[in-house]
Amino acid sequence: MPLNPDRFFSPEPSQRQMARQLYTAVADLPLVCPHGHVEPRLFADPDYRFESPLALIVLPDHYLLRMLHSQGVPLESLGVPTLDGTPYETDPRAAWRRFAAHFHLFRGTPSGLWLAYIFEQLFGIAEKLSAETADVFYDQIAVRLAEPDFQPRRLYVRFQIEVLCTTDAATDSLAQHAAIRDSAWQARLLPTFRPDGVINLDAADWRANLDQLAALTNLHIHNYRTFLQALEARRAFFRSMGAVATDHGAERPYTERLSPEAANFILQRALRGTANAEDARRFTAHMLIESARMSVEDGMVMQLHVGSLRDHNPRLLRRFGRDKGADIPQQAEFTRSLKPLLDAFGDDPRLTLIIFTLDESTYARDLAPLAGHYPSLRLGAPWWFHDSLNGMARYFDQVMETCGIYNTAGFNDDTRAFLSIPARHDLWRRAACNWLAGLVVRGILDDSDAASMAVELAVGLARRTYKL
Amino acid sequence: MPLNPDRFFSPEPSQRQMARQLYTAVADLPLVCPHGHVEPRLFADPDYRFESPLALIVLPDHYLLRMLHSQGVPLESLGVPTLDGTPYETDPRAAWRRFAAHFHLFRGTPSGLWLAYIFEQLFGIAEKLSAETADVFYDQIAVRLAEPDFQPRRLYVRFQIEVLCTTDAATDSLAQHAAIRDSAWQARLLPTFRPDGVINLDAADWRANLDQLAALTNLHIHNYRTFLQALEARRAFFRSMGAVATDHGAERPYTERLSPEAANFILQRALRGTANAEDARRFTAHMLIESARMSVEDGMVMQLHVGSLRDHNPRLLRRFGRDKGADIPQQAEFTRSLKPLLDAFGDDPRLTLIIFTLDESTYARDLAPLAGHYPSLRLGAPWWFHDSLNGMARYFDQVMETCGIYNTAGFNDDTRAFLSIPARHDLWRRAACNWLAGLVVRGILDDSDAASMAVELAVGLARRTYKL
Amino acid sequence: MPLNPDRFFSPEPSQRQMARQLYTAVADLPLVCPHGHVEPRLFADPDYRFESPLALIVLPDHYLLRMLHSQGVPLESLGVPTLDGTPYETDPRAAWRRFAAHFHLFRGTPSGLWLAYIFEQLFGIAEKLSAETADVFYDQIAVRLAEPDFQPRRLYVRFQIEVLCTTDAATDSLAQHAAIRDSAWQARLLPTFRPDGVINLDAADWRANLDQLAALTNLHIHNYRTFLQALEARRAFFRSMGAVATDHGAERPYTERLSPEAANFILQRALRGTANAEDARRFTAHMLIESARMSVEDGMVMQLHVGSLRDHNPRLLRRFGRDKGADIPQQAEFTRSLKPLLDAFGDDPRLTLIIFTLDESTYARDLAPLAGHYPSLRLGAPWWFHDSLNGMARYFDQVMETCGIYNTAGFNDDTRAFLSIPARHDLWRRAACNWLAGLVVRGILDDSDAASMAVELAVGLARRTYKL
Repeated sequence: MPLNPDRFFSPEPSQRQMARQLYTAVADLPLVCPHGHVEPRLFADPDYRFESPLALIVLPDHYLLRMLHSQGVPLESLGVPTLDGTPYETDPRAAWRRFAAHFHLFRGTPSGLWLAYIFEQLFGIAEKLSAETADVFYDQIAVRLAEPDFQPRRLYVRFQIEVLCTTDAATDSLAQHAAIRDSAWQARLLPTFRPDGVINLDAADWRANLDQLAALTNLHIHNYRTFLQALEARRAFFRSMGAVATDHGAERPYTERLSPEAANFILQRALRGTANAEDARRFTAHMLIESARMSVEDGMVMQLHVGSLRDHNPRLLRRFGRDKGADIPQQAEFTRSLKPLLDAFGDDPRLTLIIFTLDESTYARDLAPLAGHYPSLRLGAPWWFHDSLNGMARYFDQVMETCGIYNTAGFNDDTRAFLSIPARHDLWRRAACNWLAGLVVRGILDDSDAASMAVELAVGLARRTYKL
Repeated sequence: MPLNPDRFFSPEPSQRQMARQLYTAVADLPLVCPHGHVEPRLFADPDYRFESPLALIVLPDHYLLRMLHSQGVPLESLGVPTLDGTPYETDPRAAWRRFAAHFHLFRGTPSGLWLAYIFEQLFGIAEKLSAETADVFYDQIAVRLAEPDFQPRRLYVRFQIEVLCTTDAATDSLAQHAAIRDSAWQARLLPTFRPDGVINLDAADWRANLDQLAALTNLHIHNYRTFLQALEARRAFFRSMGAVATDHGAERPYTERLSPEAANFILQRALRGTANAEDARRFTAHMLIESARMSVEDGMVMQLHVGSLRDHNPRLLRRFGRDKGADIPQQAEFTRSLKPLLDAFGDDPRLTLIIFTLDESTYARDLAPLAGHYPSLRLGAPWWFHDSLNGMARYFDQVMETCGIYNTAGFNDDTRAFLSIPARHDLWRRAACNWLAGLVVRGILDDSDAASMAVELAVGLARRTYKL
Repeated sequence: MPLNPDRFFSPEPSQRQMARQLYTAVADLPLVCPHGHVEPRLFADPDYRFESPLALIVLPDHYLLRMLHSQGVPLESLGVPTLDGTPYETDPRAAWRRFAAHFHLFRGTPSGLWLAYIFEQLFGIAEKLSAETADVFYDQIAVRLAEPDFQPRRLYVRFQIEVLCTTDAATDSLAQHAAIRDSAWQARLLPTFRPDGVINLDAADWRANLDQLAALTNLHIHNYRTFLQALEARRAFFRSMGAVATDHGAERPYTERLSPEAANFILQRALRGTANAEDARRFTAHMLIESARMSVEDGMVMQLHVGSLRDHNPRLLRRFGRDKGADIPQQAEFTRSLKPLLDAFGDDPRLTLIIFTLDESTYARDLAPLAGHYPSLRLGAPWWFHDSLNGMARYFDQVMETCGIYNTAGFNDDTRAFLSIPARHDLWRRAACNWLAGLVVRGILDDSDAASMAVELAVGLARRTYKL
């Protein structure tokens, strides 16, 4: 169906009109993208082309894969490559048809909304995807992908992206970023320092990562001191490449201060291959505090993404690897868990710590009160499963009365799907303006405050929080 | 007050009109009732008559009893029989008057709405129940109960019930079901296999239940192997009597795989009467996995109702027995708790596992992501305290964006109160159509998708999920 | 901006009109204030004057202080006195200007709404506070404070307060209350018995508090028996001074019945200074049950405020002391935690126990089902961070369908800020009427039931629950 110009707004006429007015003023502002997972190689090669409609839209999107899997569509049949030798569909058109035949599954979901936007705005198709229209979509998308306008660098400009931050392992050479920097192309593509692979002792390839860290820093990492030196060296390198932020993933937001001796003791066990789960938990808990200390010193904004139990489905992990839609949220607790970190740096004006949660019961209970007290804390946008119209409404409802908008970090699209970036910002801006409009028509805000807040939510808070 | 034909719809005119349009198309679809607690004896005797207005409406309804108790109305005074010799009201009209005098307590509650529907639609009374109108109600209901139209079999037809599943202990002889099957009456009344009484080692009459299980199966249950054999024999019998599903109640959704030896070891302790609480917890946790395995083999849909702390009030339990409104929900956790079961059978296309929760904080965090990934999982309708207008709105709001409607199991009324079945489906269908209408007027769905989804929510999902 | 006469109501015209109609009928009812923290000294001195706009509005309000702190405004710069010798702003106008320059932080927050009401209704200023208007506000407020109309006793009358309960330590002499009682002024200012300082063994000044308790009661408190005697003596004294309620704060609602010997054993350790955290936890858990027993005997309503982790920020505590906005909510659990207390007194008609929570996930899961069953339990109004428009909407949405309004305790403003009392009741009454109006326009309530419930929510429930 064609996109409704008033989509996502309240049907109540006075609120809708106010929402439209607020939205119109921010709709064309540039896109600030301080956190996401777009691959820099799309921009390193000026002639990069997307391979096929399937490779562009389906294969990298674990939101789509998980839903199809949940309804019994084998990932093999969708062309997802297997690691264990199981045959899989190699005809992208055949796989696309299977996806299309199940497109009704996405009715009322964010994926459905993002794709509707992409199909109409980028490919000029306002029909509904289905078994019947599968080939029309495939052909039209394939034609457009071959046009020069569909080079990622051109799309970056067309999307009006102001800055795009990627997420990069501490052990990444940043070669693609260097190539972009050294090219004539004027764009702001910044790396983000993500040290999970060397900090989380239970990471899949921890030992190999550590060796790579040593190689990149020319350091012999044989104890806690040299480990910190290596991390600091990489942070300095990322800074020199333009990074403004770090990113940390953890199952739980647990923080605990260890003595250097205790930290070294655990690290020595890890180096000998004898660290256990409790070691890993405590070391990560300690290193979150150390990372905050490093942020205080080098000025990098610290992001903490908490609460996903990764790789819940071992069968799928063996067959297809990670990031195929089998990560499941779990309970989180911040009030006590973050206290050791906040005891150390919570009031430090040099620290900015942005928290992202998957457990919405922590919004009003732990996070908004914490962000509404500590100068270092900002609350990140609704994340992952909650990056949706209702997820945003719940976030506004449960967070803003306690910490105000000025203790939030604005929006980030947090996506691997480059093409979905405009759709995601459009949804956020509409949801934000509809929320503000609801406050105006209830006599809580006046028009001018609401207009100012709409700009903040669209671009201002993200720019300022990430020091962009 | 007379029932409002637009009841439960948004007051906003565009949404209300769309909701009414969607609802009109599903209002008269048959009622699919795949899970509930109506007693089969109502249908085994073709001339069954309800005893009195009190026995029909008040005595079996623990929603009413708990609310009256909470405001200091003694259950004795309402005619609830006592187990401990305490005198209780034996005049049903006197008890009815006490109920009527407190009917204001149900303002704005689902019980109030269901009763308003029943009073008007079944008994033709549009007044408000109160101390003043108590006798008018009593007399009018008593008159109607005596009419032949009020035999349960006639109501079954009048309600347009397509199928009605009861819930039956594993040790139930299903004699009533056999009588219905052997009668000339054409109806679809199916038993459901509920093995809690023999699986939960801490069940009140576990030993007696086990002896009955042995007697019914002609098996000497002296170890884990014969225990499984007996369960499988009863499942086969239930299947032969038309059962399509099993049902399992547990305080927590904890699952754990035991070796056959370990399971036998615990069972032996139980047989000797020396099993403790931890034994019971682990045995249930293991048997949930075994029950999933049996479902894979025999095709019965597995239902799991989790989170009620039964018999919270020991004084009430002693005086009146169970199911008098003293069961209180508690925290639940599914992401880790279900993992052992899902590791074993989560991707198996032969399993359908439907989860019902009383802890709404698990909707968006654990359950929708799990149901949106595992092919075996479906999310059950809002249950018990959440089987209400707001409960449904929260369910739609928190679940559907992540797992879509197609990973939900549609509606079930889950009631002992046969007369309330049409009222409950009416509420669900209206709530569902109002939700869909909200998506249409916000540009998220088009009319035709919404109409198709309304039919799915009304009947399609329930039929398909339960293989009816 | 000028206050909107339809503020906080739904913008949908039919609901708005119904809300306005309901509100008009309750807007001018007297204010019933059964729980709060206004200081009695404001009324003991008939000529009491507020010191300055800063001392009146900013310094006592930890909601304001925490938000300003969260955005890097040092409390020193706002004139908050320090305990550690750090210099602080002593010019109230300069501090006021800093506050005014950051007033945009409160956009869309309850503090912003309360202050807008106070500025317009009490000081006649409809402008927006900002750096530019700071002095205009300061001067105008200062002028009004000097007028005789601004004596607290006159404001009490002007606000139409029917009764105002304060909160007083068990060791408070109630001298101010005695002065009020003995004066010619006709008003109902009642003390509330708060024994945390002597019951919580880990309270900051426990030993000193206990000595004071002994002195006030002329008892030698050397064991559990004399400890109980002293508490009972103080309760009797508070009763004689008009107290109708007690108030208990606890990190968690944990209750546990100890034998008198075990309780004495712990108390002896505390008297020797060797009690540990676990002792304190269990002693409080036991004393909550003992306090319920005392309430059964003396008729005082028992309030339980649960879930705040006090003094989360040690740096702020050292510099400025307690109650500066660094208390953070945490997870709560009631279903199991309250069971020992409810086993003992849950059905006792002489007990009224009002529960206040900071963890909203307990509303629909634990608390509404408990309050909808036990005659002794009432659910308190949305508290602290949830005393807000959205907080109230979530409360109505999640609580009322299960326990009805008649198992709730109505509203209390729970404030230290005397001037904000009318604003808070106004917000509650509007939110309640808007909720009821939503039920009317959805066909759930009729007008007359809604009108009756509006009066209950405004004054009736509070009066009856607190036996006022």
